[in-house]
Amino acid sequence: MENWVLKRSRISPDQVGLVYGHQTWTFKEIAEASLRMAAAIYDVSPKLKRVAVIGGNTADFYLLLLSLQHLAVEVVVLNSRLSLNEIEQQVTISEPDLVIYESPYEQKVAAVRTPKVVLGNWQEPDLTDFAPVGQIESWQVATIMFTSGTTGTPKGVKQTFGNHLASAIGSVLNLGMLPSDKWLLAVPLYHISGYSMLIKSLLYGNTVYLVEKFDPRLIGELAASVNITHISLVPTMLAALLKEPDFLKGESLRCLLLGGAPLSASLLAQSEEANLPVIQSFGMTETASQVLALNSRDAKRKRGSSGQPLLPVEVRIEETESGIGEILIKGPNLSPGYLNAEMAKTRDGFFKTGDIGYLDDEGFLYVVGRGKELIISGGENIYPLMVENALTLVESIKEVAVVGEEDDYWGEKVVAYVVTSDNQPLNLTAISAQIEADLGTFKQPKIYYQVVELPRNSLGKLQKKRLAQLDIIATYYH
Amino acid sequence: MENWVLKRSRISPDQVGLVYGHQTWTFKEIAEASLRMAAAIYDVSPKLKRVAVIGGNTADFYLLLLSLQHLAVEVVVLNSRLSLNEIEQQVTISEPDLVIYESPYEQKVAAVRTPKVVLGNWQEPDLTDFAPVGQIESWQVATIMFTSGTTGTPKGVKQTFGNHLASAIGSVLNLGMLPSDKWLLAVPLYHISGYSMLIKSLLYGNTVYLVEKFDPRLIGELAASVNITHISLVPTMLAALLKEPDFLKGESLRCLLLGGAPLSASLLAQSEEANLPVIQSFGMTETASQVLALNSRDAKRKRGSSGQPLLPVEVRIEETESGIGEILIKGPNLSPGYLNAEMAKTRDGFFKTGDIGYLDDEGFLYVVGRGKELIISGGENIYPLMVENALTLVESIKEVAVVGEEDDYWGEKVVAYVVTSDNQPLNLTAISAQIEADLGTFKQPKIYYQVVELPRNSLGKLQKKRLAQLDIIATYYH
Repeated sequence: MENWVLKRSRISPDQVGLVYGHQTWTFKEIAEASLRMAAAIYDVSPKLKRVAVIGGNTADFYLLLLSLQHLAVEVVVLNSRLSLNEIEQQVTISEPDLVIYESPYEQKVAAVRTPKVVLGNWQEPDLTDFAPVGQIESWQVATIMFTSGTTGTPKGVKQTFGNHLASAIGSVLNLGMLPSDKWLLAVPLYHISGYSMLIKSLLYGNTVYLVEKFDPRLIGELAASVNITHISLVPTMLAALLKEPDFLKGESLRCLLLGGAPLSASLLAQSEEANLPVIQSFGMTETASQVLALNSRDAKRKRGSSGQPLLPVEVRIEETESGIGEILIKGPNLSPGYLNAEMAKTRDGFFKTGDIGYLDDEGFLYVVGRGKELIISGGENIYPLMVENALTLVESIKEVAVVGEEDDYWGEKVVAYVVTSDNQPLNLTAISAQIEADLGTFKQPKIYYQVVELPRNSLGKLQKKRLAQLDIIATYYH
Repeated sequence: MENWVLKRSRISPDQVGLVYGHQTWTFKEIAEASLRMAAAIYDVSPKLKRVAVIGGNTADFYLLLLSLQHLAVEVVVLNSRLSLNEIEQQVTISEPDLVIYESPYEQKVAAVRTPKVVLGNWQEPDLTDFAPVGQIESWQVATIMFTSGTTGTPKGVKQTFGNHLASAIGSVLNLGMLPSDKWLLAVPLYHISGYSMLIKSLLYGNTVYLVEKFDPRLIGELAASVNITHISLVPTMLAALLKEPDFLKGESLRCLLLGGAPLSASLLAQSEEANLPVIQSFGMTETASQVLALNSRDAKRKRGSSGQPLLPVEVRIEETESGIGEILIKGPNLSPGYLNAEMAKTRDGFFKTGDIGYLDDEGFLYVVGRGKELIISGGENIYPLMVENALTLVESIKEVAVVGEEDDYWGEKVVAYVVTSDNQPLNLTAISAQIEADLGTFKQPKIYYQVVELPRNSLGKLQKKRLAQLDIIATYYH
């Protein structure tokens, strides 16, 4: 395939590709700016094979990511919210030839011993000497992103150009697109959800509105004033935007992509009331973004489901008697492997995700939990997400996290951390009445810890490891 | 990949996939009907590897084409306008195990000795015994279509599922699409332009409005009444539709795909005046439909061009001093080869199309002629299409075809067959004044034959071989 940045610039030179604050770039200007940056980096170090980058959701960082495509280097996209030591660890694992950082992140790379350069701190390049890469191959590694690493050492996921292409195609075949579409990019560029929008813009020719920080008011205004058509969010962002009258007034929105965590019943109800075109999606760093989607027409009927596999993707459940088992995924989206670990695969090439779920008779996937979150109580397997799904149907419960707690007799017992509306006290009788049809007694929580808020990371992902440190308002034994 | 018919039925069961006259089929109904047909064909002959089919643009024939996907057979799609002997020849070359024909085409297959069955003339199938193919592979041959064969033996072009997929993806990345799009299918299903719409409907989830015959009035009514968004035409069809007030009133049309022959200046001007979203395209049976497109925003600026390569496609010109040379094409659309001939390729895998052209500095392709149409006059190479393009700018000229005629002195001389508006006489002085800036003297026609109409095939393609048989109104020597 031809260099995507140059190809897009040739196909739609005058189309606006990037808007950041009051600045805009056409695809031709994007190509020129990224070529200049690539030439400057080439002058800094002409024989790069792998570069690590760290920066914010800024135009400079966006252009940096594009400029590295001209050099055909593997780009380690570092998560800027990690600590000094975590950054150092990921650089050590990925062994880049150079680290490029935006100046606000100088402290984050202080422990890194690899050669470093501040983004933009280079000579005006000599473009006559510089030839960008003309061809890219689908098997070539474009990016390396570390998985959040909730257990042990973080793993560096290799994503090829072919993976990114397959992801963009799977998405367009599901959602459709018009060349005039406007995507609001408010999720981090270092995360596959953000990076995949940069790729889509190159492949679709759409405009990206890049915002540095998630500011609900600003995003509400943008959505309404410039007729945003697509936005990608995590549930906590959606909850904030549902309070923005400007956002809700915008009529151009065709697709609100939701990932990172399941949608609670109340958020779904509010979204439906506001007539928002919510598409819930399931994806992983290993699958270069979404591989399943639940379209809004099925949202109510299939509540709790992650949807159906996108067209190029196959999803299977490991065979078990109950029909519930490990979720297996195959397709052109699938990473060729980790930098520093084996990728668990079946003999016929399905990725063993470690997540547990089942498929209903119409092929909709239901995720019931992470493999490693499995609770084993009295010899019975209990998937926390199943318990959580049942509890979120209780009207007074806003959020819930279910985990196993050591128990002398049962091995583990099920406990729930809950946040209620207005922090009202729990009514155990009402809860039991609601959940007993869905959950066998052994699956029902033995203890409820009432808390003010659940711990989540910057992407809205629940951090179960931090539950034990929370302040408890009240404890209820069942 | 999963069986496309079944996958689409699972993703959008209730979406209408096919409309034919007053009948409609949802994707679920399409899946059911095609499964029944596949099971019936399986009962007729359970070990099919290759099936030849012949039929019209009917719902039955459409469902037949889909049903054969369930059997994973290679489908030889025969051109129903061919003669008895031509059909027999193509069946002999392609060696199918079975020929399935719609009853009106009984005479066309009279000479065929392969086992034959009339579409629908089979037992109600036993579905319990029948298992459709679950998986298709991208390297698998889906269809075989014979190239028009203007010279010598027709060649059977193999098209894989991967070719069809790549074509649909290249198109969607250029044109965009919405799942609610409605495509009017008025070009023959046996031609790649028609068949590719069937594939797109499976991959995009769009509705196909299938019409049996090209009836401008009916199509005008349909376009206006059901809000057609896409239509694929050849120039002669466009000329007819430009006279239909209903067609021109329809406001939903987002894309009028034009292929088969270049657009004349007057048709382009009329289309622009009517504000029609014309996308000119270049494609071949060997590339599974369009590989280049000229979007309407560039139509005027790049008149005469076939546009730019679609995203997955690479186009190169064989190196020559003049920059004009054979057009070379590479990409996932490219057929793996012919049934009965070698496919001419460069060492690095580019298909040698036999067409001659050049790329301008913005990467737009200009086709100047078929390799075998090249006129050599006094040792100079002359590409007929270049002469034709210059002559179509003459206001009184409606259509023109340029060929070489034997000449004792020059070897060949350039002659033009022209149709004028209202059959008015030619004004050679005006013609010379118009063309002399564009064409060197040796390229200018030595003889003009005025005729009433140019010979074209059912797809609007000029049939230069039949020019010599035309009645000449007047002859002008220059």
